[in-house]
Amino acid sequence: MASEKVLAHLDAHRQQHVDQLCEFLRIPSVSSQADHKQDVRRACAFVADELRGLGLEVEIIETDGHPLVYAQSEQRPDRRTLLFYGHYDVQPVDPLELWKTPPFEPRVEDGIVYARGASDDKGQVFAHFKAVEAYVRTGTGLPVNLKFIIEGEEECGGHGIYRYTEQHADKLACDAVVISDTTLYNETTPGICYSLKGLAYMEIRVKGPDMDLHSGSYGGTVQNPANALAGIVAGLKDRDGRCLVPGFYDDVLELEKEERDGFAALGYTDAILRKETGAPAAWGEQGYTTLERMWARPTCDVNGLASGYGGEGAKTIIPSRALAKVSMRLVPNQDPERIAAAFAAHVAAIAPAGVEVEVVNHHNAAPVLVPRHSPMMQAGMNALKRGFGADPVFIREGGSIPIVGTFQAWLKAPVLLLGYGLSTDNIHSPNEKFDLANFWNGARTTAVLLEEAARA
Amino acid sequence: MASEKVLAHLDAHRQQHVDQLCEFLRIPSVSSQADHKQDVRRACAFVADELRGLGLEVEIIETDGHPLVYAQSEQRPDRRTLLFYGHYDVQPVDPLELWKTPPFEPRVEDGIVYARGASDDKGQVFAHFKAVEAYVRTGTGLPVNLKFIIEGEEECGGHGIYRYTEQHADKLACDAVVISDTTLYNETTPGICYSLKGLAYMEIRVKGPDMDLHSGSYGGTVQNPANALAGIVAGLKDRDGRCLVPGFYDDVLELEKEERDGFAALGYTDAILRKETGAPAAWGEQGYTTLERMWARPTCDVNGLASGYGGEGAKTIIPSRALAKVSMRLVPNQDPERIAAAFAAHVAAIAPAGVEVEVVNHHNAAPVLVPRHSPMMQAGMNALKRGFGADPVFIREGGSIPIVGTFQAWLKAPVLLLGYGLSTDNIHSPNEKFDLANFWNGARTTAVLLEEAARA
Repeated sequence: MASEKVLAHLDAHRQQHVDQLCEFLRIPSVSSQADHKQDVRRACAFVADELRGLGLEVEIIETDGHPLVYAQSEQRPDRRTLLFYGHYDVQPVDPLELWKTPPFEPRVEDGIVYARGASDDKGQVFAHFKAVEAYVRTGTGLPVNLKFIIEGEEECGGHGIYRYTEQHADKLACDAVVISDTTLYNETTPGICYSLKGLAYMEIRVKGPDMDLHSGSYGGTVQNPANALAGIVAGLKDRDGRCLVPGFYDDVLELEKEERDGFAALGYTDAILRKETGAPAAWGEQGYTTLERMWARPTCDVNGLASGYGGEGAKTIIPSRALAKVSMRLVPNQDPERIAAAFAAHVAAIAPAGVEVEVVNHHNAAPVLVPRHSPMMQAGMNALKRGFGADPVFIREGGSIPIVGTFQAWLKAPVLLLGYGLSTDNIHSPNEKFDLANFWNGARTTAVLLEEAARA
Repeated sequence: MASEKVLAHLDAHRQQHVDQLCEFLRIPSVSSQADHKQDVRRACAFVADELRGLGLEVEIIETDGHPLVYAQSEQRPDRRTLLFYGHYDVQPVDPLELWKTPPFEPRVEDGIVYARGASDDKGQVFAHFKAVEAYVRTGTGLPVNLKFIIEGEEECGGHGIYRYTEQHADKLACDAVVISDTTLYNETTPGICYSLKGLAYMEIRVKGPDMDLHSGSYGGTVQNPANALAGIVAGLKDRDGRCLVPGFYDDVLELEKEERDGFAALGYTDAILRKETGAPAAWGEQGYTTLERMWARPTCDVNGLASGYGGEGAKTIIPSRALAKVSMRLVPNQDPERIAAAFAAHVAAIAPAGVEVEVVNHHNAAPVLVPRHSPMMQAGMNALKRGFGADPVFIREGGSIPIVGTFQAWLKAPVLLLGYGLSTDNIHSPNEKFDLANFWNGARTTAVLLEEAARA
């Protein structure tokens, strides 16, 4: 197979690739901080140069914020097409004092590179670049048409990529989207994440008196907004954790037996959960394992409560206002807009007399499900198996990655979430790291994927 | 009657008394601020000089904080004894910029004196001094034995007066305690407050995971402390506002028909409540009027909720912790310690699985009831009627005044709360004021009270 030569090239150039990655990591491309604007540009140029060096046709696309880099190989109609997405911007570094070495001076120690962006997402994107480079340097013909869209606003909530995808869906058309911005299932087990939860983020605002009242002078005469809010929040779920919003479960796609068996085989125990979280016990909806609830059951969680006095000691008031932030994590095929509306109607129905209650829908995200049994998904699993030398598993994720839904909706192509990071990589935290073994195995996986996708 | 001469003296020296009061008000005796310590001493000395000027035997009693001033007239066994309580310290003045004129430069305008301490409590205490002075200046024999205990720690939570009362109950022994540190029922109606609510101040602390968790990654797997807290708080009261703590109402003294009739005659309407508070509606326990709930029904109010994120927009977390401050205002004959224990047991009983719940009892105060039909109470009513020239009413108060309970418990004497202020006096706020008519009528009331008490 052609990929033997390609993989041999990758294995022979490991140190060189790490050195090049460190160059990329030295650019402090913090997209959310205005004083790093030129650094973000430099990272953009670095990516563009890399892609040009692969013989691709490169375009820098200006947005309202930081630019997108688009690149493509020759597009032959007889080949399948893969679109690689990633981002070259990074999170801020605060609190800087908790870093053992400076975040933009990469340090390699015991097979791990430490730097901001190492795992999220420069290291994972760079693995793709090196895989393609291995084809080019070994004179191996590309088995697929390649497209890259690499953005610089992932960490600052920019909308450039969303607008561009909607407006240029034809240009981005592909047989599969490949995203490496997540994690292996665990240190020894690679996996493809085939489902993400969606989100409906709500806020309940309760207003009573115009000002905080003396709880002695007015206690018992008016509805207390904090008591009222507690009653409303208590009415959102039953004691077993099932959401009481009417119709909430109507569109929930139940897990298939194969999925439940697969999850069970992963051996995730409540003891692991307690160790990870420090919670006194696992808890939730009856009839589902902890992993099933985490990955495949919708939730209704308070993210915050605020009312009156929360400081030390006592203050004797009836608060004027009370608020709760409530997020519902949604699963296929729940519709966020419909759920948000049902939530608001339910709150109105259970709100007590004597206060004014308002419900705000902050933002929504659609849940994502990528069919597991497509040829492209199988290609991804085969690539992981060969790239990492271990049997990959199908996993799901409780969080949301909004761009995945956008790609699915506009490109009508499966999205392969091939995570090369680890959940312990300290992304968004001090001392972000990336295991070089995962960097190298990731590049191998991408290299194999091009062949696997070609014959999928 | 002897008091005609005394009252005539008071009426003839109105301006002089106002000038003297202004001297008192010029002393910035802010007891909670260390840099005013010498000013507090000066106010103490001012009070001692005043009382010495009345021919009383005066003692300055050191405490851990600011000193007490004790004074007494000759104590004849054949006369009744009145103990007057008040305080010479004042609240801080912040926010200073909201004062129209400086808080310690008294301004008299349209029959009102504006200054910090004018109503709370210097003006009211000074009315007592001037009443006694009128007896002395007119050569009218005192009809009763007099005792004064004036403290300097009322506004800073000092315990000197409590310890002194417990340790020197014999010295303070009396037939009635007179306290003027409250208000008339309204601008035209004087009253005696014969009942105060007690208090049990609780805090509920709920602990879940060790740190805030990503609500996507861990939603559905652990009990959410904020949801759990809402459930607990919702379980404290039913939808009609009745407290669900078992035994809560067992010792509640129901209102007598005469009391309910008296309250009803005051004409306090829900429209007045809405105007005072801005609340959308009056609300509370069925079967009681708003004033009955305010004055004579126990309450259970959240004073504050705090958990997770309460700022703008969204943060997607499962909070590690959640807390609620809950105060129960208690009525005769509820026992705060017993109620606090029942509350803690109830919370433990309704707490859901999967979190750790702790209940803290911050502090308690006993409710107070002074029998309305005692001769001394009647003496007070007669004094108000003649002093203010208007029919007084019996009122109650939803707040707590802890010293009243202490006096009742240790001195075994009725406490007459003869308030000379108005609820609009801005006590504890900028532009505190005291109506001179109430100052003068208050002094007249005190003067009459000495005679009324003598023959009670």
